[in-house]
Amino acid sequence: MEEEGPAAAAPVASNRKVVLRGYISRAPREDDMVLVDGGTVALRVPGGAPPAVLVRNLYLSCDPYMRGRMRDFQGSYVPPFKPGSVIEGFGVARVVDSTHPGFSAGDIVSGMTGWEEYTLIDKPERLSTIQQSDIPLSYHLGLLGMPGFTAYAGFYEICSPKKGEFVFVSAASGAVGQIVGQLAKLHGCYVVGSAGTNQKVELLKEKFGFDAAFNYKEEPDLTAALKRYFPEGIDIYFENVGGQMLDAVLLNMRVHGRIAVCGMVSQHGLTDPVGIHNLYCLVPKRIRMQGFLQSDYIHMFPKFLNDMGKHYRDGKIVYVEDMSIGLENAPAAFVGLFSGKNVGKQVVCVSQE
Amino acid sequence: MEEEGPAAAAPVASNRKVVLRGYISRAPREDDMVLVDGGTVALRVPGGAPPAVLVRNLYLSCDPYMRGRMRDFQGSYVPPFKPGSVIEGFGVARVVDSTHPGFSAGDIVSGMTGWEEYTLIDKPERLSTIQQSDIPLSYHLGLLGMPGFTAYAGFYEICSPKKGEFVFVSAASGAVGQIVGQLAKLHGCYVVGSAGTNQKVELLKEKFGFDAAFNYKEEPDLTAALKRYFPEGIDIYFENVGGQMLDAVLLNMRVHGRIAVCGMVSQHGLTDPVGIHNLYCLVPKRIRMQGFLQSDYIHMFPKFLNDMGKHYRDGKIVYVEDMSIGLENAPAAFVGLFSGKNVGKQVVCVSQE
Repeated sequence: MEEEGPAAAAPVASNRKVVLRGYISRAPREDDMVLVDGGTVALRVPGGAPPAVLVRNLYLSCDPYMRGRMRDFQGSYVPPFKPGSVIEGFGVARVVDSTHPGFSAGDIVSGMTGWEEYTLIDKPERLSTIQQSDIPLSYHLGLLGMPGFTAYAGFYEICSPKKGEFVFVSAASGAVGQIVGQLAKLHGCYVVGSAGTNQKVELLKEKFGFDAAFNYKEEPDLTAALKRYFPEGIDIYFENVGGQMLDAVLLNMRVHGRIAVCGMVSQHGLTDPVGIHNLYCLVPKRIRMQGFLQSDYIHMFPKFLNDMGKHYRDGKIVYVEDMSIGLENAPAAFVGLFSGKNVGKQVVCVSQE
Repeated sequence: MEEEGPAAAAPVASNRKVVLRGYISRAPREDDMVLVDGGTVALRVPGGAPPAVLVRNLYLSCDPYMRGRMRDFQGSYVPPFKPGSVIEGFGVARVVDSTHPGFSAGDIVSGMTGWEEYTLIDKPERLSTIQQSDIPLSYHLGLLGMPGFTAYAGFYEICSPKKGEFVFVSAASGAVGQIVGQLAKLHGCYVVGSAGTNQKVELLKEKFGFDAAFNYKEEPDLTAALKRYFPEGIDIYFENVGGQMLDAVLLNMRVHGRIAVCGMVSQHGLTDPVGIHNLYCLVPKRIRMQGFLQSDYIHMFPKFLNDMGKHYRDGKIVYVEDMSIGLENAPAAFVGLFSGKNVGKQVVCVSQE
């Protein structure tokens, strides 16, 4: 075999990036991020460095937790982004070059990557290789990725569901909510979802098979609305929004109810979050309210992939994503999460190759 | 054996009662209750009625949950009191007469009774017979009664304690708090308590053996105070107060922390409870926050009695009660709970016989 000499230049490509301008303490805006020309990148892993892979990013995921990385706060479970540096997030990518024995050029991988066209990943052992199938690659950012797994772990490990129980899901057409609701239906529960547009409400009822759904923006009294949809009360609340919805839910919970706290997206933009007034309900109703992160359940991921892939192929779980085309549209797509602009799981297509 | 003829009159006694004047929706005041002359009571269970026992009340218990029974609200786990009727509560009493095979005159019992001198109890099967010992009878309203059992069930069943963990107890010198703190110490935890006077703080440190304690009224910044007492954070919070203390605790919890919600006494008097702003901490810290009632764990009561009696006799658990003498002082004793006037478990001695 003939080695290429050191003089053989690697092919290069231009590499646009989305960069964080600076830390914020309010809801994200489009101009908090900027698309910059990152110059050219050599399409080869640099020699002499520890094993790494160079990937071409295909799909990027917009997730609410990323808002937390835009704050100057070191105490969270993920460190903040660096101002002036590329935004990081989950993505699906194709390996262009690899010096790591686990990956070869052409492999499709998912994992943490950058909001740019090409990313050099120096901890490739954290990437997963995707076995391509009839399931679209971008679904590995939702149905078969972190949001789907969040729904799966949260529903089975935190909600302690029983057949016939009454389940309420907020932000129900979102990446996580749509899966939770369908898993609850498969489990034999009665499921109601809330969303912020009538289009989403229709989606919940017609596409995702929820028993009922409502537009919370059209309900002047959320407590009364929940009473209408759950005359016997709520056994399980899958909490994605926080704020007034949580207060209304607390008043409508049943004895020994469970609240799985996945997120509180309505509070993401607020420096001083809305106060919750009805926590006293926890005592007489013996409610368990539990926050969780999917990463604590990662040992269940292979089973999840298997179960969810089968459900999807069997037509028992459907999935809706909202795809923005082009890296330049990533900031708007991300910002839209916090006003509920997305319909289904928000992803960005950087390249379909 | 010679039967008494129907003409043989039963002895009678006067029977003063504490009666609820009417429903309230604020903190209780002394004049919400009134001591009335209940006339005379025949000291014999009426003939022809279902089995019942007539008791002379010795000690009555003042407990924060009773505030909930003063509201006109049917939806709780205990029904409201009836205006114009005698207040009900836990008590220790001596059986004067019984037509129930399980009880005989002279027995000492504990259970639900009335705030009066004599009570006819028509569901005596709910009473427990007390085996007299060297433990004072009134302790069956605290250390060996509902509050002690609340501490026991809450600590072992809800807090999931591990040796070496950091435990914080609010209202720590109260009926439940003092026991929780001592159980946590016995379990090998590091325990800090808060209370509302310096006298109580001394009690926590000197008498109950807490590792540290502070007067929350002297701390302008509760978040900073907790940071000082728990530089590595709190694993377990036994919640008795709610409000600002809960918000400060949430900021100081450790990952995978547990909050056992026993009560929120600071919120009892408020129609519009203080808002809790830091619940978003539940997600990144994966906190489990769980309300509970001791009644769900009643199968553990015999083990509790045995364990706690042994701890007390072995000198491993001490107990402080605050006894008011005389039925006429019961309203003031009860109202004092909500401003922290009591030092230790509040009881009322109706009669020492």
